[in-house]
Amino acid sequence: MSARAGIVVTGTEVLSGIIPDANGPWLAGELRERGVQLAHVVIVGDRPDDVRAALEFLGRERVDLAITSGGLGPTADDLTADVVAEFAGREMVLDEALEGRIWDIVAPMRSRWPDADEGAMRAGASKQARVPRGATVLEPVGTAPGLVVPPAEGAEGPTVLVLPGPPRELRPMWAAGVETRAVRRALAGAGRYEQRIMRLYGIPEAELAATLRDLEAQGVPMADLEITTCLRRGEIEVATVFEPAAADEYATFEAGIRSRHGDTLFATDGETIDEIVRDLLLGGDGAPTFTIATAESCTGGLMAARLTDLAGSSAYVAGGVVAYANDAKVAMAGVPAELIARHGAVSPQVADALAAGARSRFGADVGVGITGVAGPGGGTPEKPVGTVCLTVDGVDGTEAREARTVHLAGDRADIRERTTVVAMHMLRRVLLAVR
Amino acid sequence: MSARAGIVVTGTEVLSGIIPDANGPWLAGELRERGVQLAHVVIVGDRPDDVRAALEFLGRERVDLAITSGGLGPTADDLTADVVAEFAGREMVLDEALEGRIWDIVAPMRSRWPDADEGAMRAGASKQARVPRGATVLEPVGTAPGLVVPPAEGAEGPTVLVLPGPPRELRPMWAAGVETRAVRRALAGAGRYEQRIMRLYGIPEAELAATLRDLEAQGVPMADLEITTCLRRGEIEVATVFEPAAADEYATFEAGIRSRHGDTLFATDGETIDEIVRDLLLGGDGAPTFTIATAESCTGGLMAARLTDLAGSSAYVAGGVVAYANDAKVAMAGVPAELIARHGAVSPQVADALAAGARSRFGADVGVGITGVAGPGGGTPEKPVGTVCLTVDGVDGTEAREARTVHLAGDRADIRERTTVVAMHMLRRVLLAVR
Repeated sequence: MSARAGIVVTGTEVLSGIIPDANGPWLAGELRERGVQLAHVVIVGDRPDDVRAALEFLGRERVDLAITSGGLGPTADDLTADVVAEFAGREMVLDEALEGRIWDIVAPMRSRWPDADEGAMRAGASKQARVPRGATVLEPVGTAPGLVVPPAEGAEGPTVLVLPGPPRELRPMWAAGVETRAVRRALAGAGRYEQRIMRLYGIPEAELAATLRDLEAQGVPMADLEITTCLRRGEIEVATVFEPAAADEYATFEAGIRSRHGDTLFATDGETIDEIVRDLLLGGDGAPTFTIATAESCTGGLMAARLTDLAGSSAYVAGGVVAYANDAKVAMAGVPAELIARHGAVSPQVADALAAGARSRFGADVGVGITGVAGPGGGTPEKPVGTVCLTVDGVDGTEAREARTVHLAGDRADIRERTTVVAMHMLRRVLLAVR
Repeated sequence: MSARAGIVVTGTEVLSGIIPDANGPWLAGELRERGVQLAHVVIVGDRPDDVRAALEFLGRERVDLAITSGGLGPTADDLTADVVAEFAGREMVLDEALEGRIWDIVAPMRSRWPDADEGAMRAGASKQARVPRGATVLEPVGTAPGLVVPPAEGAEGPTVLVLPGPPRELRPMWAAGVETRAVRRALAGAGRYEQRIMRLYGIPEAELAATLRDLEAQGVPMADLEITTCLRRGEIEVATVFEPAAADEYATFEAGIRSRHGDTLFATDGETIDEIVRDLLLGGDGAPTFTIATAESCTGGLMAARLTDLAGSSAYVAGGVVAYANDAKVAMAGVPAELIARHGAVSPQVADALAAGARSRFGADVGVGITGVAGPGGGTPEKPVGTVCLTVDGVDGTEAREARTVHLAGDRADIRERTTVVAMHMLRRVLLAVR
């Protein structure tokens, strides 16, 4: 790839792990789409020396574009603009027109914070309007303007695109930033690249590694494919980047994976299991929409939340019950109390009853029942932490249903999340059988 | 701080944003607790040149300890050990005893993957047993061993602690790694530091910035406090790091914040709102435990999932209903159909009915009702996307309840998550009123 970029994420709160960084991953995807190679993401605190060192590192690594995120707020510890100005060899100046525009944004907020001090808010706006001389200002989406800062005349180094930290502000301002002349010039060498993602579920990563070696040994051409495999919560992702000219090579590679692992390959075009399940539920093209309902215990609402995460899910999600207490399993999901007494709340029988209860209570076509031990407490020798019973109860008039008991590793959060992964894949199989 | 560390997170899948990095933030917390200053987190792909450049950057930044995460898997693109060996000036050698121990771990997995190829798995184990000569091996928690690699004799540079990528493996192996002689020597200069976090809800960040300037202007001593403020989903966090000798200074600072913002300050010891609500529900010290139930529409289970996220929540979470469809609101949460017809599904009246229904259906002390427009579709001029009605219905025999209609910014995921933040703070106030 001919254009190369680096990202500097600033903020002690991100560096110290208090806030997860949403911007690096998002910017990475944007760069990839534009055929720009991302070399490094550097996360630094709000210490000016460390921010400067990160920029200098990217300069030494000869990136064409350095993107910074964060450190543009109204408080004194927000100093990205100053450091970038120094890095680019430019002095800071007050942009009075910009100050006025920021104040126009900030002033109406006083109604939301009636006790706020106007002087403090004016000082913040003024601070945010100080910019490196010669920089292009990106209009604020929140209150902080962004900046495009090329190196000073005659100097070498990357162009710096300075963006605010909140993702809601950064994303539209990135879109504006890449359209500026300075950024377009910096990225002029970028080629066009394609990325494809295959996803597999139910095979070990080493098995896939063996397949890759095998394909290579058999002379399947893969030299122009940059292939990365990774294990992600029980699913294996095979991400491949290639130039358009290598499209045939990729097609052969994909066919090789499909012929060996067709039973576990569930996505070849980057679709997530959530999107696949959505599409199966939605039907379309003459197929009916199936409605779904959940009755979950250990996942405590995560399964319903996952199903309703996608826009438009109200077309097929009827609802769900979080039957955390045993009484709730009986009263709200219709699980016979004697079933719980005889087999225990974590049992295939109760998972079956939860799935059936979800279907009938919500009048849904498909029911999902989940009961398990998420831990850290509650495990027994017979049913240790990580034991989860799941049932997907299929559509009337079909035999489609699936029930599994799994033993998941990890902590409480892992077990809860992985349970939803297992359930999504069970749902896919049941829905495929019905269609 | 006298000892300084850097983190290199490797993996194209992390760099490209496919997987979020869980390790940098976690390691950051561990380093802080040990009084080690974290200078940089660098995320790089699986290109050896970029991994090497990141290590060299940390070397130039004079860190005492460089920690790497990832790149220790069985596949050929996992090359962290090789690059670290080269960086430290050490050659790679096969540790045959380690190879045997890895095989002892891998071999039983064949029963889970009956179709897996044994040769492939043996090759993977052998690859993972190649280590830099003179490195200390950290026993695998998964299949990948970790490494502690000091610089070659006579050479300068940081000691490198090499850890696997999966958090479940990295965390216990970090604990083993910091106990090794080489890491203890590298961190010998670390001081002892305290970190405190205050959290506020319901004031703008600029207001807090003004308070900080004010306190400084009034001569409140703050020179020995490293204070960072940040806005996080509607809450403001004030994180402060200081040496034990500055404890009095911090106490004065905290008192200053409390006297000015006592009404919005909800945590002074790092507690999250989730923990505070849990403690209020749990009671203890003679206070009764209150049970809680939810009936949610637009959040689709997220509120219940949040309440059950903490271990031990089965003591106070009765359950919840995800009443996504209007029929479900009526049938499962007892919302009168005519209320929906008259006021619309998104209305304070329906939120009230959902909260009351959650209480009565689950026999809980406290009910939470949530209904809103998460978008992107479904908005109207009167009830645009982001409009959410919430009701917390308090305990029998008290007047404690709270109802709010809020207008939240952001995309579907933001609106859903922020709704749960609003609900948690409403819960806190209602529960404080009851106690």
